[in-house]
Amino acid sequence: MISRSAKITIVGLGLLGGSYAKGFFNAGYRNVYGIDIDEEAIAFAKKYGWIKEGGDDVNLVKDSDIIISALYPTTFISWVKENQHLFKKDCILTDVTGIKEEVMKEIRSFLRSDVEFIPCHPMAGREYKGIHYADPSLFFDANFIIIKDENTSSRALEVAQDIAKILKFKHVVTLNAKQHDEMIGFLSQLTHVIAVSLMNVNDNTNLAEYTGDSFRDLTRIAKINEDLWPELFLLNKENLSKEISSFVDELNAFKKLLEEEDKEGMKEKLIQSTKRRKKFDEEAL
Amino acid sequence: MISRSAKITIVGLGLLGGSYAKGFFNAGYRNVYGIDIDEEAIAFAKKYGWIKEGGDDVNLVKDSDIIISALYPTTFISWVKENQHLFKKDCILTDVTGIKEEVMKEIRSFLRSDVEFIPCHPMAGREYKGIHYADPSLFFDANFIIIKDENTSSRALEVAQDIAKILKFKHVVTLNAKQHDEMIGFLSQLTHVIAVSLMNVNDNTNLAEYTGDSFRDLTRIAKINEDLWPELFLLNKENLSKEISSFVDELNAFKKLLEEEDKEGMKEKLIQSTKRRKKFDEEAL
Repeated sequence: MISRSAKITIVGLGLLGGSYAKGFFNAGYRNVYGIDIDEEAIAFAKKYGWIKEGGDDVNLVKDSDIIISALYPTTFISWVKENQHLFKKDCILTDVTGIKEEVMKEIRSFLRSDVEFIPCHPMAGREYKGIHYADPSLFFDANFIIIKDENTSSRALEVAQDIAKILKFKHVVTLNAKQHDEMIGFLSQLTHVIAVSLMNVNDNTNLAEYTGDSFRDLTRIAKINEDLWPELFLLNKENLSKEISSFVDELNAFKKLLEEEDKEGMKEKLIQSTKRRKKFDEEAL
Repeated sequence: MISRSAKITIVGLGLLGGSYAKGFFNAGYRNVYGIDIDEEAIAFAKKYGWIKEGGDDVNLVKDSDIIISALYPTTFISWVKENQHLFKKDCILTDVTGIKEEVMKEIRSFLRSDVEFIPCHPMAGREYKGIHYADPSLFFDANFIIIKDENTSSRALEVAQDIAKILKFKHVVTLNAKQHDEMIGFLSQLTHVIAVSLMNVNDNTNLAEYTGDSFRDLTRIAKINEDLWPELFLLNKENLSKEISSFVDELNAFKKLLEEEDKEGMKEKLIQSTKRRKKFDEEAL
């Protein structure tokens, strides 16, 4: 397990970075540092003792055994490029970015050879931004995905697994970056595009009084961080674009059955979706 | 309020009919009859005292002051056509059908002039079928929609409102049939088509272990009654087809922004959906 005396620096104290900081604090880690340009976020984390020290000074990263970036993807890449000369030899760098292939390729293209980057994706979030909403219980029901390939050292893998344990993630999975991004393109990005589009298709706010759980469930994630998600969508453009196309094809196929009054055809679609969703429930237990 | 001694007959003791029977029972009504071709459903309702008497004999409907059909739409129409000669003069007929304009037009085209039909839509359901899942608490959080036009008598309206009160619906709304069907085409039918299509677009059951709440929320209603819903879709073909088209256009517009790497355009979409969904939350309080 990661030593309690290890110096851990979290870069970016937003919702996720803050939840990491609080989670490490709850697990007894007292040598955690925070870097953020937002003074208020630093003051908040210090007030509760989640970080030992913090500020906007990048020199705080010096001597860190583990550096965790909780920055947005493009900011993460430029931050590492600018500041990696300060990193301790043999330190482990990890992140929370929601898309992996592009980010990993970029970081690896310039990262010092004596520093190892192990990309991680904590599959947890909220519709709110900022450290004030930090809450490590976000993780208790969530998956923690570690990106592993032939270059991943067992030491780095162990650090990533330890982070998942310390923060009490429910389930730890290892995937390669390509598998990860395809899966996210479908399960997470397509679903968010659907929810957003369902809210945007017409001004339906006047219908609020009539809605039941269905519409509410389908649009809950239409409240979305407008700065982060377009970045993630663009980093996974090809997968997401393909997923939207397939989904549109499926909708049009259903529409065709409807217009042709093909009751049996629609029934088959409903039988298939019911069967899959039930199987899905069982497998997820 | 509907008198406790009124004879009420529920035709079709499935999930909804059964929940109505149990709800009337809970409210102290002891003169409720049930008609169903399924002996087991009748036996179940009788065992718990939800109905005084029941069976597959249509003569049970005689002398009823209120007839409530909980049949599927097309069965409802043919059942009334075949058995209306047994109806008591001046009785009130109501239903639970999810689509109104077509059903109302059909029923009114042949209904005896001394019987009044007041269409109602209890906006509640489950993914399960059958009286064994009957549960009037389904209604406590739900809307009860009464279809009203220039031919609706105040007596019939009162009966419908009383039913909503007896069954403890949260909210009672009156609409005309056209408004109702347009609203349902968007809020309920389109959302179900989306959920079904998302499950059907590819065999994603292997992804179960990676999913978070988003995908689960969007596909919960993909477990769906395959006999009932195609009927409802066909009865609302034009509205639903139009809704699917508009939604596909919205998805394609988003895809275009993605492919053109229009980050600002995507951001605007996300800001709009967030704003609407928040307003929607407020209005629904």
